Amino acid sequence: MRTIKLTIAYDGTRYNGWQVQKNGNTVQAELERAIEKAAKRRSRVHAAGRTDAGVHAKGQVAHYTGSSDIPSGKIPVAVNTFLPRDIAILKAEEVSSGFHSQYDAKSKLYSYYIFNSRRRDPFRERYSWRVPYELDIPLMRREAGMLLGRQDFKCFQARDKRERTSVRDILSVGIKRKGTTVRIDIEADGFLYNMVRNITGTLVDSGRGYLPEGSVEEIIGSKDRTKAGPTAPPQGLFLMKVRY
Amino acid sequence: MRTIKLTIAYDGTRYNGWQVQKNGNTVQAELERAIEKAAKRRSRVHAAGRTDAGVHAKGQVAHYTGSSDIPSGKIPVAVNTFLPRDIAILKAEEVSSGFHSQYDAKSKLYSYYIFNSRRRDPFRERYSWRVPYELDIPLMRREAGMLLGRQDFKCFQARDKRERTSVRDILSVGIKRKGTTVRIDIEADGFLYNMVRNITGTLVDSGRGYLPEGSVEEIIGSKDRTKAGPTAPPQGLFLMKVRY
Repeated sequence: MRTIKLTIAYDGTRYNGWQVQKNGNTVQAELERAIEKAAKRRSRVHAAGRTDAGVHAKGQVAHYTGSSDIPSGKIPVAVNTFLPRDIAILKAEEVSSGFHSQYDAKSKLYSYYIFNSRRRDPFRERYSWRVPYELDIPLMRREAGMLLGRQDFKCFQARDKRERTSVRDILSVGIKRKGTTVRIDIEADGFLYNMVRNITGTLVDSGRGYLPEGSVEEIIGSKDRTKAGPTAPPQGLFLMKVRY
Repeated sequence: MRTIKLTIAYDGTRYNGWQVQKNGNTVQAELERAIEKAAKRRSRVHAAGRTDAGVHAKGQVAHYTGSSDIPSGKIPVAVNTFLPRDIAILKAEEVSSGFHSQYDAKSKLYSYYIFNSRRRDPFRERYSWRVPYELDIPLMRREAGMLLGRQDFKCFQARDKRERTSVRDILSVGIKRKGTTVRIDIEADGFLYNMVRNITGTLVDSGRGYLPEGSVEEIIGSKDRTKAGPTAPPQGLFLMKVRY
């Protein structure tokens, strides 16, 4: 038996998220089906981050244990043949049998793309959140700085999902503007459900003048989801990288 | 009654092309539905180029005649509200009542995007044709040069569609490479059904070494569709601009 580590990209638009569920198509289900066809054996595939419905990935990492003798370098081509065009294995490596894509991850990097424009663009709105208001980027950066470090981020946790602890360590935060694209990068040791989308919604509320300067610090302190901004839509969110 | 000229962009993936038909969703049907909702009156919308199923547009032009009193500058926002996210009116102008988007067009510019890579990329394959072979771009350019001018392009016309004449005037042709993207631009006074996709398939056959140098000139002279290359898939094709 060999453990294989996969790096995967997908356009999440058509999927009900990563994880296999009774209703709806998922990325995990497509991958397990394609691996079974290529390797003639069914394997469970575990991902580092269980992305939500409509969320994309450029560097999702997953692993599975299998007995097939396809050389790992040939797995991408062999499995991609059976995958729809909106999912692709970018890389496959054999790793030690103890490897676990989720538990061994040191950090994950998500990017959220905002399309800051009053005009629509069908080719960008599939992969971004169109925000028509003027955004004060320097203010958003100052507010985002308050996110750094090990803190209780209960205020950014979806109310219907509760994990044992809502303490996470945000390692880096960046906001970059290039033309009408504003990209928010957040790297952390882990993320709560909807955390990046809730942070984005709050930062946009700051940037458009809805929240006074200092609000993010206050909202974190309040531990109250209702104080934070709205949940930004899924199509702007990309899982970019998982570090081990 | 006013005549309104629209500039439109759409992601054609979900549509059965531009033109209204009995089965399947079309861009024209979505636009007519949205204009009816915004203007409270049904109008027929005519396009400069009836793009095929799966083909995209960044600068399609269309026109309609209506009696609504929405100022033309407000039409994009008013109608876009009722359009799905993959179609957008970019611009609306009132024009003289004799204007016709198709008959008055002097030329149309199409771009075909090739993703020249052995590796897959879900975010690029939706908008390009992935060609894994090495392509000889200078050779493709020399071959493409033979397309210029007023000629009978019967060899690039889909066999099941016949128009009165297959003579067209190709005004400009360009092939540009930028990293793994190869873009073929063709501007002509008009296009036959599948013409750009058939030209692209033929140029790729040249670039990968399937056809010897000089083949394009010979194929045009033969007026024989079976001599030309395959029809490139629709998702790489974009209607970029219509000139009047």
